Amino acid sequence: MSRRLIITLFFSSFFITQAFPLEKESSQITELEWLVGHHSKKETKPTDWYPAKVPGAVQLDYARSKGWEDHNFAENWKDYRWMEDVYWTYKTNFSSSDLEANKCLYFVSKGIDYEFEIIFNNKQVFAQEGMFKAVNLDLTDLLAKQNLLEIRIFPVPKVPGRNDDRNQAAQSVKPAVSYGWDWHPRLIPSGIWDDTYLELRNASHFQDVFIDYQLSDDFQEAAINLKVEGINIDDKFYEWTLRDADGNTVLEEKGQVNNLDSRSFLIEKPNLWWTHDHGQPSLYSSKLILLDANNNMLDVQEQKIGFRRIRLVMHEGAWSKPDTFPKGRSNPPITLELNGRVIFGKGSNWVNPDIFPGTITRARYDELLEYGLKINFNIFRVWGGGIVNKEEFYELCDEKGILVWTEFPLACNNYIGTPSYLSALKTESEAIIKRIRKHPSNAIWSGGNELFNGWSRMTEQSLALRLLNSQCYLLDPKTPFIYTSPLMGMAHGHYVFKDQSIGEEVFQWMTRASATAYTEYGMPGLSPVELLRKIIPENELFPPKPGTSWESHHAFNAWGPDRWLMPGILEGYFGKADDLEELVENSQLLQGEGYKCIFEEARRQKPVCAMAVNWCYNEPWITAVNNSLINYPNHPKPAFYEVSNSCRPFLASARIPKFTWKEGETFSCDLFILNDMYSDIPKGRVTVTLVADEEELELLTWEFDEAMPNQNITGPTVRGVLPDWDADRFVVVLEVDNHPEYSSSYTLLYQPSPFRVRTGGARRLNQ
Amino acid sequence: MSRRLIITLFFSSFFITQAFPLEKESSQITELEWLVGHHSKKETKPTDWYPAKVPGAVQLDYARSKGWEDHNFAENWKDYRWMEDVYWTYKTNFSSSDLEANKCLYFVSKGIDYEFEIIFNNKQVFAQEGMFKAVNLDLTDLLAKQNLLEIRIFPVPKVPGRNDDRNQAAQSVKPAVSYGWDWHPRLIPSGIWDDTYLELRNASHFQDVFIDYQLSDDFQEAAINLKVEGINIDDKFYEWTLRDADGNTVLEEKGQVNNLDSRSFLIEKPNLWWTHDHGQPSLYSSKLILLDANNNMLDVQEQKIGFRRIRLVMHEGAWSKPDTFPKGRSNPPITLELNGRVIFGKGSNWVNPDIFPGTITRARYDELLEYGLKINFNIFRVWGGGIVNKEEFYELCDEKGILVWTEFPLACNNYIGTPSYLSALKTESEAIIKRIRKHPSNAIWSGGNELFNGWSRMTEQSLALRLLNSQCYLLDPKTPFIYTSPLMGMAHGHYVFKDQSIGEEVFQWMTRASATAYTEYGMPGLSPVELLRKIIPENELFPPKPGTSWESHHAFNAWGPDRWLMPGILEGYFGKADDLEELVENSQLLQGEGYKCIFEEARRQKPVCAMAVNWCYNEPWITAVNNSLINYPNHPKPAFYEVSNSCRPFLASARIPKFTWKEGETFSCDLFILNDMYSDIPKGRVTVTLVADEEELELLTWEFDEAMPNQNITGPTVRGVLPDWDADRFVVVLEVDNHPEYSSSYTLLYQPSPFRVRTGGARRLNQ
Repeated sequence: MSRRLIITLFFSSFFITQAFPLEKESSQITELEWLVGHHSKKETKPTDWYPAKVPGAVQLDYARSKGWEDHNFAENWKDYRWMEDVYWTYKTNFSSSDLEANKCLYFVSKGIDYEFEIIFNNKQVFAQEGMFKAVNLDLTDLLAKQNLLEIRIFPVPKVPGRNDDRNQAAQSVKPAVSYGWDWHPRLIPSGIWDDTYLELRNASHFQDVFIDYQLSDDFQEAAINLKVEGINIDDKFYEWTLRDADGNTVLEEKGQVNNLDSRSFLIEKPNLWWTHDHGQPSLYSSKLILLDANNNMLDVQEQKIGFRRIRLVMHEGAWSKPDTFPKGRSNPPITLELNGRVIFGKGSNWVNPDIFPGTITRARYDELLEYGLKINFNIFRVWGGGIVNKEEFYELCDEKGILVWTEFPLACNNYIGTPSYLSALKTESEAIIKRIRKHPSNAIWSGGNELFNGWSRMTEQSLALRLLNSQCYLLDPKTPFIYTSPLMGMAHGHYVFKDQSIGEEVFQWMTRASATAYTEYGMPGLSPVELLRKIIPENELFPPKPGTSWESHHAFNAWGPDRWLMPGILEGYFGKADDLEELVENSQLLQGEGYKCIFEEARRQKPVCAMAVNWCYNEPWITAVNNSLINYPNHPKPAFYEVSNSCRPFLASARIPKFTWKEGETFSCDLFILNDMYSDIPKGRVTVTLVADEEELELLTWEFDEAMPNQNITGPTVRGVLPDWDADRFVVVLEVDNHPEYSSSYTLLYQPSPFRVRTGGARRLNQ
Repeated sequence: MSRRLIITLFFSSFFITQAFPLEKESSQITELEWLVGHHSKKETKPTDWYPAKVPGAVQLDYARSKGWEDHNFAENWKDYRWMEDVYWTYKTNFSSSDLEANKCLYFVSKGIDYEFEIIFNNKQVFAQEGMFKAVNLDLTDLLAKQNLLEIRIFPVPKVPGRNDDRNQAAQSVKPAVSYGWDWHPRLIPSGIWDDTYLELRNASHFQDVFIDYQLSDDFQEAAINLKVEGINIDDKFYEWTLRDADGNTVLEEKGQVNNLDSRSFLIEKPNLWWTHDHGQPSLYSSKLILLDANNNMLDVQEQKIGFRRIRLVMHEGAWSKPDTFPKGRSNPPITLELNGRVIFGKGSNWVNPDIFPGTITRARYDELLEYGLKINFNIFRVWGGGIVNKEEFYELCDEKGILVWTEFPLACNNYIGTPSYLSALKTESEAIIKRIRKHPSNAIWSGGNELFNGWSRMTEQSLALRLLNSQCYLLDPKTPFIYTSPLMGMAHGHYVFKDQSIGEEVFQWMTRASATAYTEYGMPGLSPVELLRKIIPENELFPPKPGTSWESHHAFNAWGPDRWLMPGILEGYFGKADDLEELVENSQLLQGEGYKCIFEEARRQKPVCAMAVNWCYNEPWITAVNNSLINYPNHPKPAFYEVSNSCRPFLASARIPKFTWKEGETFSCDLFILNDMYSDIPKGRVTVTLVADEEELELLTWEFDEAMPNQNITGPTVRGVLPDWDADRFVVVLEVDNHPEYSSSYTLLYQPSPFRVRTGGARRLNQ
C-alpha cells in the first residue's frame, strides 16, 4: 500500500539518494542535504557555502568548515560574536518525479531558529518568527522537476538600544540565556535546530491528534475524547486501537471522523501514570488509522498516552492563615498532588544541555534523565531562560516517570505586550502547548523565570502573561499554570554557602526561612581538574585569576565580583589551597554539604514546604565553577551523590547549626526521620556517632517508630562536648541499624583549641 | 423614514395600545403588559395570575397583589421564602399586522433572573441560564396574528445538599448575597429585572458596536477601531460621526461596513476622561448610521465614549522588596494610574441598592452616585456578592467621573469549575464584558470577593477564575483584571471599633497594619431612630434584644453573636444608654471616628498604600445597624460626613493613638498634611487646640510648606497634659489659618481623675 517518492538530492559537492519509510506506512520521509552560508544583507546571497549539519546550528557549521577548535576552550566563544548580526541562508536541491493524484509533498521542520523565510524555487513561500512552531509546508503545487529550497535566517532578534545582554531578548520568544548569563557565555545559536525533512503524504492526512481525557474523581474511569485535526479528513473513517503497556488491546473503535467530536470512549480502571518514586509510569499506546470509504489506509498516527490527574493544592494548614485583621489572602497552592496523592517535589532546574540546542539528541537527554533517576528526583523545572525542550525529552520523562515543570521562554526581563510580541508569543505558545499537553509528565506550565521580581518588573497585569494563562486555559486546562516562580510563599536563593554581607551560613539562612517551595537555590562547586584542563590554558590554571579563561568560565564577575569561585569564603574555611586539586576538593565539599543542608531542611519543613528544586542540574558548556550538579555534558560532581542521598524517600537526617566547630565546644544537632513514602515505612534505631581522625564518639541512640505516610518524625537533639582530636574535620554519622540505605553522614570542620599543648602536627585551619 | 408597527396588547383584565419610537429612528420599541403567576411543576400553568411590573420581581408582584406590607418591616421578609422553590410564568399577548419585507420583530430583554425558557405561541423557542446576558430573540418567522409570549422562570439555583445560605449559590452565576448575608435577609429575587420590550428592526441592523481605541504613550493621539457586529451588514455602508462634549464634530467618516476591520481613525489631542477630583470626565458622542446602497438609513447606534488609560502599577519602592534571601516575589500592583497619573483611590464597596434589582432605576443610581461626589469618592468597588449593575449605573459613573471596580458574581464560595458552571459563566461573562468595556469609568475587573481566603478556598488554579481572566484578556485587555480581593499585600477588615479578643482599637490595628490597599474595612453604626421605627415594632425598640426584629435586621448574630450592635463595646465606652436616642448617638460617634481613623491612616500610608475603600457604602434594605455610610434607600448617616471630610483632596490630619484619655495624662498625636492634589497645593499654618466643655487648650502651631504633588507632609508630634475638665469628651481641632476647608477635628473620650475632688456633677464614664 505504501508508495515511494524517489527524491534525488544534488549538489556540486555530493550526490545522495535517500528514501526510507519510517513507522508511518502511509507516508515517506526524505532527509535532505544542506549547505549554508552567511551574507550581510537580506537580499544578497552567501558567497561561500559550507556543508550544514541538520539539525544543528549555523555557528557550528561555520566553525567546522574552518576547522575551529572546541568552543568550550579558553575564550574561543568570543570568535562567534559576529555571527549574530548577519543573515544565514541554507539551501538544498532535489528533483522529483510527478506526484500521483492524492499525494502531497510537505516540507517539514520541527524547529528553525529564530526568524526566517522559506524561498522555494526563488519565490518566497513562507515566513515565520519563532523557533518552536513546526513548519508544515505543502510544496505540491509548487514543485518543478528540479527544486531549490532555501531558508533564510535573520540576524538574531535584539531590542534596539539595549546593552549586549539578556535585555536584548525582551521582545522575542528567543530564549534569553544565550545573550549571556552568569553560567552561559554570550553565544547565540541560530539555524535549523530540530528534525527537518520532506514528507510524502496523502491528500487526506492528520495534522494533530490529541487524546483528551477526564478521570473520574475516584480514578476508576477515564472518559476519552479524540480531538483530531487534519486535511480532508471529515468524510473519512478512522480505526482506533488503544493498548496497555503489556500490549493488551483496551479499546478498538471504528467510525466516521466527523463523528469523533461527539464520541466519548470509556476505560475502566485505567493504569495510572505515576512518578517513578510513587509507582509505575504506565503508558498506553494509541494507533489511529485514517481510512477512505474503501478501507484504504490514508494516514496513521501513533502516540503514547498516560492517565494522570495533576494539581497544585494547598499545604496542610494553609487555609487557616492569615489569621489577624487587617487580613490578606492565603498563600497560593504549590504542593503537587498526583492522582490524589500529595507528593513532595524533589528536583532541579534543567537548563539547555548544550549552547546549541540543535545538537541535543535523544541519547543526551536519556543520559541526563537517567541520572535524574539515580539522584532520586521526581521533577525538573525547565527554566524559562532556556529552550522548550524537544519531543524526545518529554517522551523520556513520560517513560521514566519524572515530572516536568515547563516554562515559556521568558526570563528576567519585562516582556512588554506590544502587538508584535504578543502575536509571536501567541503563535509559539499555541504550538508549544499543543505539543506538550500530550505528555503525562508535563505537570506545570509557568510563564517564565523570576518575572515578578525587581529585575524583571512584570506583574499579573502584564499582557504577555495573561496571554499565556489564557492559552493554557483554553488548550490544556487540566495542567496547572503559574505566572512565574517565585510566587507568593515561594522562594529563590540563596546561592552561596556563606553570605558574607550578613555573616550567615546556609545552615542559618535555611532554618530561618519558611517557604512553600524552594524552587531555586544554589551552591557553587568547582569542576573536576580534568574538566578544568579542557577549558583553561595550562598557564592560567593555578591560582585562578580574574581576567583569564577562569572569568570566561564564570569563576569571577559572573554574579558579583568573586562569584562563582568565591575564593574568600574558601580561604576563610580552609586556608590558602596549595594546588588546584586541593582547591577543587574544598569547593566540592562546600557544595555537597551545602546542598545536603538545603534539600534536607526543605524536606524537614514539610508540609508547609512542598518542593526542593535546586539551581541547577546541568550546564550547557563546561563551566569552571557552577551551581550545577552535573558537568557538561554528563559528568556528575561529588555533590550529585550527596544530593542523591538527601533525596532518598526515607532517611535519617540531622539539622546542623553551623559548619565550623571548636574543641571543647558542645556540638549539637536535631535528629529527624525524613519520609516521603506512603507504604512499607520501617521503624528502627539511629545511632549518632562523631568520627574524626579514626576516633569515634558515640553520642546517642534513638528508637524511632513507624512514621505516618508522607510524614517526617522529629527526634531528639543530640549534644556532646567535642574532644581533643588531631583533625581538621569530623563526620556526623547517623547509622540506622541494619539499614545502611537509610543512614546519613555530614562532614564538618574542626578547630583544635589554641590553648591545647600540641602533640602532633595537626593542621590548623582558619586562623 | 421611520415606520410604525402597531402592536396591540390584550388581556382579559386590560387592553392597551402602545407604540412609541425612542431615539432610534429606524426602530420602534413597544413595551408590553405582563401577568405573572406561580406553579409547582414545570409543565403546569399558574392557576392565578397577577399584574406584573416589568422590570421588577415576581416576589414584589405577588406581594402587591396580596396587599402585603413593606418587606423591610419586622420579620416580613420571612414570608417570601416559599417563592424560591416554585416556577413562575410571565405571560403577555399581542396582535400584529403582517410585517413588511426587510423588517423583523425582536423580543428584547436586558435581563431575566435566573434560569428561564421562552415559550412563544405554545412552543419553546429559547432557553438560558443567567440573568446578565440580554435576550435578543427574532420572532419574525414565528409571528401569528394573535401571539402569546410566555417566560417560564425556574426555581432559584441551589447546589443540592447545602445549607440554606450562600453555599447554595456556588454553582451558578446568581449573586450570592440574597441567599443571606450578615446585612441582607434571606430573600432571593427572580423574574424580569431589566428593560424588556418588542423592537421592530430592519433586517439589516447592528447588534453591537464597540469603539476600541489605543492612546499613544504621550496621550496626544487616539487610534480608534470600530468593531461592529450585526445582521446582514457586511455589504452595507456606514456614516460615523464623533462629537466632543461641546458638540463639535471631531470625525465624520463614511465607508463600507466590511472595510471597518482594516480602518483605523485618528484623533489628535483627545480630551481625556478623568475622575472628577483630577479633571473633567470628558465624553464624546458617537453616532453610527447603517445605510443601504441607496442611502436609506437601516439602523443607528449612539453611544458615549471616553478616552482614558487605566493601569494598576507598583507603588514607589515596591520593586526593592523583598531584599533578603531566600527571596520571594514583589507585591502585585494595586496602585491606580489614570492617564499616566498615579491617583489615590478613595471609595467604598457598593452593594445592591435594593434586594430586588429590578426596582433599581436611573434615579436611584443617580441619588447614590451624587452622594459619591459629595463624599469625595473617586472609586466604587462593586462587590461580587451582588449584581453586575445596569447600564445606567455605568453611564452615570462615566458622566460623573467615578471609577468602577467591577466584580463578577462570585463571592465567599468555592465555585468549582464543572463543565456546566463554566459554560454558564462563559456566556454571562462575555455579555458582561462586552457591555461594560465601553465605559471609561470601568477601571478594574475582578473575579469576585475574598476568593483566596479560607472561607472560599479558590486559588489561581481555579478554572472559573482562569476562565474570567481569559475572557477579560480576550475581550478587554486594556482594563486591569485581578482574581479577587484581597490579593497579596492587600487587606480586608477589621470591621469593629475595638477587637475585644485582642484588646485593640482601630487606632492601634490600623497603625500597625501596612497594606498596599485597604479594600474593605467596616465600622458599624446604628441607623437613625426614625428609620429604626420603620423596621422594629414599637414594643421591641428599646433595649435591643436578640431574637427580635433587631436580629432580623442584623443587630445580633449577624457576624458573631454581638454583631453588629456590639452592645458590650458601646457600654464599655459610654456606660448603659438611657434610651434609644442615646444608644444611636454613641454608636454613630464610634462609626464616624472609627472610619475617619482608617481613611486618614490609609492615606498617611501612601505611597505603599494606594486605596482606601470601606465596607460598605449603601444597603439593600433598612438595617438596624450596619457598616454602611448610607441607609436604605438614600439617607446618609453621620459617619458619611466624617468620611467626606477625611477624603478631601487636601486636609490637616492627626494620627491619634487611642480613644479614651484621662485627666493628667499626656495627650499626643502626630500631625500630617494629607495631599492627593497635583496642582494648586497651598502652604499654611495649623493650630492644634483641644476643646472640652467650652474650654480651649492650644497645644501647638505648625507652619507647613507646599507639599509635592500627590505627597503628604509629616508634621510634628503634639503633646500636652490633659487638664481638669468637666466633660466626658473632648475635641482635637486642627485649624488651618484662613482655610476652614482644610481643617479637621476628632472627638475623643475624657475621664476625670478618680482622685480629683469633684466640684460638679461631671459624668463618669467606663468605670
